[in-house]
Amino acid sequence: MKTLKLGIAGLGHVGCGLIELVERQAGLRLPGEVQITGVSARSRSRKRPVSIEPYKWFDDAAQLAVSDDIDIFVELMGGSDGPAKVAVEAALKAGKPVVTANKALIAEHGQALADIAEGQGIDLLFEAAVAGGVPVVRVLRDSLSGVEIERVAGILNGTCNFLTTTMLETGRPYAEVLEEAQRLGFAEADPTLDVSGMDAAYKIAILSAMAFSASLDFSKVAIHGVDGVGLFDLKLADRLGYRIKLIAEGVLTEDGVICRVAPMALPVSHPLAQVNGSLNTVRIEGAPLGAVTLTGPGAGPGPTASAVMGDIAKLFNPGVRSAFGRAAHHVTRKFISASEEEQSAYFIRARLSDRSGALARLSEALAAHGVSVDQLLQESAGADQASPIAIVTHVSARKQVDAAMAQLSQLDVLVDEARLIRIEAG
Amino acid sequence: MKTLKLGIAGLGHVGCGLIELVERQAGLRLPGEVQITGVSARSRSRKRPVSIEPYKWFDDAAQLAVSDDIDIFVELMGGSDGPAKVAVEAALKAGKPVVTANKALIAEHGQALADIAEGQGIDLLFEAAVAGGVPVVRVLRDSLSGVEIERVAGILNGTCNFLTTTMLETGRPYAEVLEEAQRLGFAEADPTLDVSGMDAAYKIAILSAMAFSASLDFSKVAIHGVDGVGLFDLKLADRLGYRIKLIAEGVLTEDGVICRVAPMALPVSHPLAQVNGSLNTVRIEGAPLGAVTLTGPGAGPGPTASAVMGDIAKLFNPGVRSAFGRAAHHVTRKFISASEEEQSAYFIRARLSDRSGALARLSEALAAHGVSVDQLLQESAGADQASPIAIVTHVSARKQVDAAMAQLSQLDVLVDEARLIRIEAG
Repeated sequence: MKTLKLGIAGLGHVGCGLIELVERQAGLRLPGEVQITGVSARSRSRKRPVSIEPYKWFDDAAQLAVSDDIDIFVELMGGSDGPAKVAVEAALKAGKPVVTANKALIAEHGQALADIAEGQGIDLLFEAAVAGGVPVVRVLRDSLSGVEIERVAGILNGTCNFLTTTMLETGRPYAEVLEEAQRLGFAEADPTLDVSGMDAAYKIAILSAMAFSASLDFSKVAIHGVDGVGLFDLKLADRLGYRIKLIAEGVLTEDGVICRVAPMALPVSHPLAQVNGSLNTVRIEGAPLGAVTLTGPGAGPGPTASAVMGDIAKLFNPGVRSAFGRAAHHVTRKFISASEEEQSAYFIRARLSDRSGALARLSEALAAHGVSVDQLLQESAGADQASPIAIVTHVSARKQVDAAMAQLSQLDVLVDEARLIRIEAG
Repeated sequence: MKTLKLGIAGLGHVGCGLIELVERQAGLRLPGEVQITGVSARSRSRKRPVSIEPYKWFDDAAQLAVSDDIDIFVELMGGSDGPAKVAVEAALKAGKPVVTANKALIAEHGQALADIAEGQGIDLLFEAAVAGGVPVVRVLRDSLSGVEIERVAGILNGTCNFLTTTMLETGRPYAEVLEEAQRLGFAEADPTLDVSGMDAAYKIAILSAMAFSASLDFSKVAIHGVDGVGLFDLKLADRLGYRIKLIAEGVLTEDGVICRVAPMALPVSHPLAQVNGSLNTVRIEGAPLGAVTLTGPGAGPGPTASAVMGDIAKLFNPGVRSAFGRAAHHVTRKFISASEEEQSAYFIRARLSDRSGALARLSEALAAHGVSVDQLLQESAGADQASPIAIVTHVSARKQVDAAMAQLSQLDVLVDEARLIRIEAG
């Protein structure tokens, strides 16, 4: 039976989850045997749910990465620059296949690392970097090679989805629900990476590069988080039949790939609207397939470790393919920014001052820029004497809506800045 | 650039869909180029949506299968025995990798064919045999190698799902909806393979063999179709909060793998209950992953051809793994029949005669066998003077429920045979 020797760098939740999985590998379906022949982390003595005593310790991950003791380097350290990058580059240059869960590293430097791996004729695998236990990376790269993918969209951050789901379900405000999320382990002590949309952005960039054979350019990803979405927005959207969720999407246009993360309003009946709590979901559309959806746990040591193990299993029978699945025709598309001509419907939430004629002036501003209204709801003014107002527009060009919003902010009719949220088609 | 030469046997809907896809391969993400260097079918001259003139014709699929003109044999003929089996065996023995969409062949003879392929060190791939365009086969075999799978369940036949969905939605009876399904192309002229549950059974047997490293024994699969499910059942179940759908499942027990297809009642909120129309969905549960669900088009030339192409793409960089992903630890589990001790809740639908005391006698029969009632609904008698009655039981052992049903059929209280449908846990 073939044996693969692993060097594991990074012994946090996922690293320990992987060690546990290796220790009970008899119940898995690996094509051979896996041994841990080296480990490394920032702290050797820190308290962990598993013992690392049985395994040879390396102070320096970069030394582990090139050691003759290992066949495969497993990087679970995290961070786009710094020791993770140094160690992964070292491993690849030394001819060691790499398995990683590091989304930031692959989103920011994946292209360059993939080139090194390809030059060496070895694998660089990162299933665990996107959507935790949901096996979307290999599905996109390999299984769907026979599909002309047009769009990849989904919910890729469980923290944000937990927040928007729970705020609406329980009627509690953002800060309170965030605290609960942190208590339950659905959000970090410092939640910025998640709520800013950055985490989801890393992931959708990786999926988009693969889906569209595009050169990954993270600088082109437009990122907006949920940190500004309030209970107020969610309730108003609900009254008009929409759910607001943080959606990550990559779409292929004639000019290149548009990749972005932002809160979006989805019709209640939309499949993505029905994925709640901390689950992740990815919907892949293209010809001649139609659309396929994958849903499952997007984070957590168990799901993430199983994704790492799935990549390790592949290395028994490599049949190496370039890391992002480069098409033979070398169709290298570029990431681009969304055009202002882009057509979409929008959800607008505002607070009208109680000054006479405010609603008329708002309506005029929209009409003046060719933005027509599908639905409108004005609620009674609260103690602050501002009337909550929610509008669903008909499909318009982005620039028209932007112009209407700019005019609105100049008028003296809004109490504070209006919020604009794109609507996901049904 | 590497080129792979395909011999395609079977030029029906899927075969023509594949030819179309090969002709527009520049838009795909193949690691090399694909050429069709031989074709075969029962009829050369039949009218087809694509021309087969450009391709070398073989009268005999078995000759195409071993021809030096091809690298890969693609079998799209169908049928578990007969020319498809002869040709696939010939190809494998001649050292040609095989890609097939033939679920009957793989369910009935896959074990033996996999052994031939393994002996030759070549691939036998059958993504297109299960759930059309949904890439579940390779996900199960490879991506989820690091998961101890406990259960695989889903909706694997679009015809049956279309029937049960549409009957309930439109309030129309089985025969009428079946006719509509045939008109729309969701059911065959002879729908037996689908409505009997046989089609779904082939598929779940294949998935179970893979998920559990079990020796595929199709004779152990318990098969019940939707051909007995009526609008009456669906409506009553709906009133008690359940959807009836044809569910295929494989579950691992201490003694082996239980694999079956039957109508099941699902709570309305269950994820499987929400997959309607002709979509397929597969839910895979195991440690330490949790559960992952894949949903998409289960049939149709486009989706099926894209699955075939996904397998072809793999053959550029084989890294051969045994066809069912045999685990190195050679834990060869067996398929077994469900035990009568198995615990489940049940949905019982019956028609009570209007004789006095009928309900009391029914209740006594259940109680006598230790089957307790969770919900009960009796509707007014119709023109036939029989009262529709629907019962949801608490969890009981199979043998208790069978005994209660046997006693009921002996009593003079039921107008016709009662229907028993297992309930899917929430």
